[in-house]
Amino acid sequence: MLAVRTYGPADLRLEEVPEPGILEPTDAIVKVTASAICGSDLHLYHGKIPGIEPGMVCGHEFAGEIVEAGHGVLDVAVGERCVASMFSACGRCAACLRLEHRRCPRFGMFGYGIAFGDLAGGQAEYVRVPFADMTLAPVPDGLTDEDVLLTSDILPTAYTALARGEARSGDVVAVIGAGPLGQLICMCAPLFGVSAVIAVDVVADRLKEAEALGAVPVDARTTDPFDAVYDLTNNQGADLVIEAAGNGASLATAMSVVRIAGRVVLVGVLVDEPFPVSAGEAFLRGLSITGLVGEPLRYRDDLLRLITAGRLEPGRIISHRLPLAEALNAYRMFDAREATKVVLRP
Amino acid sequence: MLAVRTYGPADLRLEEVPEPGILEPTDAIVKVTASAICGSDLHLYHGKIPGIEPGMVCGHEFAGEIVEAGHGVLDVAVGERCVASMFSACGRCAACLRLEHRRCPRFGMFGYGIAFGDLAGGQAEYVRVPFADMTLAPVPDGLTDEDVLLTSDILPTAYTALARGEARSGDVVAVIGAGPLGQLICMCAPLFGVSAVIAVDVVADRLKEAEALGAVPVDARTTDPFDAVYDLTNNQGADLVIEAAGNGASLATAMSVVRIAGRVVLVGVLVDEPFPVSAGEAFLRGLSITGLVGEPLRYRDDLLRLITAGRLEPGRIISHRLPLAEALNAYRMFDAREATKVVLRP
Amino acid sequence: MLAVRTYGPADLRLEEVPEPGILEPTDAIVKVTASAICGSDLHLYHGKIPGIEPGMVCGHEFAGEIVEAGHGVLDVAVGERCVASMFSACGRCAACLRLEHRRCPRFGMFGYGIAFGDLAGGQAEYVRVPFADMTLAPVPDGLTDEDVLLTSDILPTAYTALARGEARSGDVVAVIGAGPLGQLICMCAPLFGVSAVIAVDVVADRLKEAEALGAVPVDARTTDPFDAVYDLTNNQGADLVIEAAGNGASLATAMSVVRIAGRVVLVGVLVDEPFPVSAGEAFLRGLSITGLVGEPLRYRDDLLRLITAGRLEPGRIISHRLPLAEALNAYRMFDAREATKVVLRP
Amino acid sequence: MLAVRTYGPADLRLEEVPEPGILEPTDAIVKVTASAICGSDLHLYHGKIPGIEPGMVCGHEFAGEIVEAGHGVLDVAVGERCVASMFSACGRCAACLRLEHRRCPRFGMFGYGIAFGDLAGGQAEYVRVPFADMTLAPVPDGLTDEDVLLTSDILPTAYTALARGEARSGDVVAVIGAGPLGQLICMCAPLFGVSAVIAVDVVADRLKEAEALGAVPVDARTTDPFDAVYDLTNNQGADLVIEAAGNGASLATAMSVVRIAGRVVLVGVLVDEPFPVSAGEAFLRGLSITGLVGEPLRYRDDLLRLITAGRLEPGRIISHRLPLAEALNAYRMFDAREATKVVLRP
Repeated sequence: MLAVRTYGPADLRLEEVPEPGILEPTDAIVKVTASAICGSDLHLYHGKIPGIEPGMVCGHEFAGEIVEAGHGVLDVAVGERCVASMFSACGRCAACLRLEHRRCPRFGMFGYGIAFGDLAGGQAEYVRVPFADMTLAPVPDGLTDEDVLLTSDILPTAYTALARGEARSGDVVAVIGAGPLGQLICMCAPLFGVSAVIAVDVVADRLKEAEALGAVPVDARTTDPFDAVYDLTNNQGADLVIEAAGNGASLATAMSVVRIAGRVVLVGVLVDEPFPVSAGEAFLRGLSITGLVGEPLRYRDDLLRLITAGRLEPGRIISHRLPLAEALNAYRMFDAREATKVVLRP
Repeated sequence: MLAVRTYGPADLRLEEVPEPGILEPTDAIVKVTASAICGSDLHLYHGKIPGIEPGMVCGHEFAGEIVEAGHGVLDVAVGERCVASMFSACGRCAACLRLEHRRCPRFGMFGYGIAFGDLAGGQAEYVRVPFADMTLAPVPDGLTDEDVLLTSDILPTAYTALARGEARSGDVVAVIGAGPLGQLICMCAPLFGVSAVIAVDVVADRLKEAEALGAVPVDARTTDPFDAVYDLTNNQGADLVIEAAGNGASLATAMSVVRIAGRVVLVGVLVDEPFPVSAGEAFLRGLSITGLVGEPLRYRDDLLRLITAGRLEPGRIISHRLPLAEALNAYRMFDAREATKVVLRP
Repeated sequence: MLAVRTYGPADLRLEEVPEPGILEPTDAIVKVTASAICGSDLHLYHGKIPGIEPGMVCGHEFAGEIVEAGHGVLDVAVGERCVASMFSACGRCAACLRLEHRRCPRFGMFGYGIAFGDLAGGQAEYVRVPFADMTLAPVPDGLTDEDVLLTSDILPTAYTALARGEARSGDVVAVIGAGPLGQLICMCAPLFGVSAVIAVDVVADRLKEAEALGAVPVDARTTDPFDAVYDLTNNQGADLVIEAAGNGASLATAMSVVRIAGRVVLVGVLVDEPFPVSAGEAFLRGLSITGLVGEPLRYRDDLLRLITAGRLEPGRIISHRLPLAEALNAYRMFDAREATKVVLRP
Repeated sequence: MLAVRTYGPADLRLEEVPEPGILEPTDAIVKVTASAICGSDLHLYHGKIPGIEPGMVCGHEFAGEIVEAGHGVLDVAVGERCVASMFSACGRCAACLRLEHRRCPRFGMFGYGIAFGDLAGGQAEYVRVPFADMTLAPVPDGLTDEDVLLTSDILPTAYTALARGEARSGDVVAVIGAGPLGQLICMCAPLFGVSAVIAVDVVADRLKEAEALGAVPVDARTTDPFDAVYDLTNNQGADLVIEAAGNGASLATAMSVVRIAGRVVLVGVLVDEPFPVSAGEAFLRGLSITGLVGEPLRYRDDLLRLITAGRLEPGRIISHRLPLAEALNAYRMFDAREATKVVLRP
């Protein structure tokens, strides 16, 4: 089958690899019908993630059809359409029973290497999915792949950032970075009753989409985000700031626009960027700073209900669809910010 | 000055009474510019509330202008426009510091009699307001009386019902009673990220407005609410049910449509209606049942921010405006359900 | 093998039945080494629970040793000592991922009949345990059966009552019923930082044990519980009241001693007892009333950590140990309140 | 009157100053009977806090007797014994109604300079107390000054660190710094149901007291705290780490012993110490880092109930009592860690 494989910095290859098979009774094999490229895949692309073996298959956002299921898989029928969580966990250990799936001893993230459970990813024709009855969710009747695809990662990540950041009625939320993740944060923010979202970026198209989603756009090339946020908050600063770009400059912006005793959530992928404030400043300003990854298993069912009800429309941020065979071109476009969100179709 | 006074069941009178004056340094006198009739005023009207002295001035939802302030009042300037909380509390005792204002020894509700602090109400030309710097909120620039008037009681009551009922993303909420309170619950529900609101009533106009506010309308004259809710929830029942009509029939409906381990909030005024289920049934079904009154002091600032931001528009449910001089007619119309929400203008 | 079976009101029999075997790959077979009789078993004994087939094996609190495990069972080794949750659930469905195990389509409670999943119970020599890797927890090193046995049901039920009742620092908690459940509530209450626990009962020995666990004992035969609670709370009433006896008289006491805007938790088994207050009274007093069953899967790991650390000692309430062969006598003693908690040893 | 005044780094003086008088109707004058030296006073002593005018009177923990009250003060009677919150706020603004007292425009902290409201402190014979009916709490009957004195700051600060750090049943909490603040964290931790507290310090007496309060002591001079915490947590790290020493070394320890996705609370006073981890590391480890000051107004009533009930005994950490006239010696001893907690008596 065809698959996108990584061989080091900027060395992605589209190759034929053997189709995966069932290894454990709790596995299923999914024939992929849509797979997305995530911002965090760019960190792989640029070789920033350690523990990646040459030849690993990439991709952790995918939907498809179940073509085989181990005999330990409940409630999942061959032929059924499904969408995957970006990671799998056993569901039965003490960590899973606290909904801390990331601490499950069997935690595995698709296409993210040895440190994350060594699972082949979904930018391929077929994927082996562990703990399939939990990792996969059926696609609700009447919904398309694109309606549900982003519940793998980026939509629950946006939602988790707001939930863990304790967004609440009346809050002003500043989102630093209006790429696909930032846009979905703008889309989810009304679910928390916030009074305003301020979206900061430097790409005009992204700001436009953020505005269409109800945010106040701030173009950092022409307006100082600090001034903009303080102007819009009666000189208080934002109640909650979400860093959704994953770089040092936006991190510095994030730390500067939060109010006294406010909350900062780090959800863009940072690797070794230093803190732009001292611990003393964080203490004196009474800040709360939380780094997190999304929790699809926790929030997916709620999000699917909202999509079904028409209250969320994550598919609208998908800007490009390409055949899997054009994956390398897709990565290039996404890396160049020519595309907001790209879907590959095997 | 002119005021609406109660003298027993169905005996309201519009009379001249002396203007109130400052009694405590923390008081202010407000010249009322708009005053609403609340559903709970109908309980007074029908003589169901004990402890009402003949001649008590009615009304606990009002906005106006400060014309006098005691020297102990902070941050409140004569001439300023303001909207009142339906009740006042001292703000400084142990109960207030836990935000349990109702348990404050100085708790007082306007126009609700001896058991509620014996305060004259706001269906009058002037009102004395205790603890004015907390009870009154300034009207944000650019907003009208009608934009903010319902933050006195019914809007925060709608919000409190959802908040205490732990409405959350993906939930289905059933609202029993689509009068003014039910309509505002429909309006506030999206702030909690719910996936659907089902509104049950028997008045076509009320159902129409609920639908305009995003709810699924169920006309109990033609459709069994039980069937409707179970059809819409995959035979689970509603996650949260809010009884917003305040009568035995709607209470029975409320208890019947809630799912196993679901939540029922009682926010319509009940007086002596029995429970339509046994305690044994409540235990076996794992229900949580909560009676509550709204918490304007806790949520008002958030709600005013949302109104200012255009995310809530409570004034849209106001159906009639009459001069204070026509208050008796206004009560009659409201009692006959000819009007959804009536505003009196002195 | 020997097992306790029910044949209708007061008709328990000790009989030989076939040993259970693996039915599903996720099952395990446990050789029981200790099994408790629960207060809710008395409801079976008195024939109050519907849907019980004649010959059903009783018991939902048990510990033992794994003697066989299906090939779909993870992390559970034959020969390992374990303690069971009183119920099992699949761990992977949308309900389980919200930690609402009771709503899992595969929910089953041991020894509680058709309406609860039709599982044979643990008052027997062997039990079949579905979803064994989640239903069973390993016994931590150094702990005995009696140290952990009550984590099956009654200890997490006590804990859940306090958690769902939002017990918090400084609260006064009234526990109505100082039997085994009430005593464990007294034991767990300090974990929530409460300032005082008041335990009401009519059995001197039970009150003595409650006092030894830090509660203020109130003997309802000689002292009016209402007077006692109001005296001890500066005439406010209790912040949280937990009905742990499961009868109409204690329910009436519970509803009478709660403060304005307080919380009542119903955790003793009620079947058809009416509410002793009207819905109107519950509304006007602003009460919150919650019926619940315990959540062992949610809290068991935390409780085992506390037992291991010596901060909880649930085994101290076990008053009698009898061979399984004397189970009928044990039931009689427990029903007559001659024993607080009885353990049967096959 | 006699007062402790600061004139710059290490330049404290005991001087005669004029007695304070009522400035606002909401003020009271307190005759101090006991005043403590707080760890944060040492930062003043060492000149690390900006915005201190020469001659400022120090001290923010004090108890005493009300000798005069403005006419706007409710419920506070001359002659009554009271204990002060370390800061005052108005109680009636939008910030106070969200219990965010620190954001109140009238926020003032005693003896902490211009940036904190410019209030003279309590290491003096008399203090002027703004918003006295909220800032002061009456001393419950039967309690001494030393029983309640630490509710001004350090006890609620310890409690707040645990509450905001979301300490919960079963958690392992590591406290870095076993001085007076760390000891009170050890004392309060059982209120949150934690299974273990690990206290790290380098002073033998402090570790001994922490152990007496139920903690596992770790002497960092002889044991690597990282090894100790990982040994005690099955190689997971601590669920919650509280930095209670306020220096770079203990901050580094704190960040090293927290588990994946754990929480770090910064409550020791830091000024300009850098973060010992990068933002990238905080993101990848999923950490939550929160700097905070204590919230006496929020938790004082709960804490006083617990002290009255005998469930907290904060006075036991008071190691030395000296006359106010010996304040300079007291500061020296405290700075040299010869004393754990010193009380000055005017």
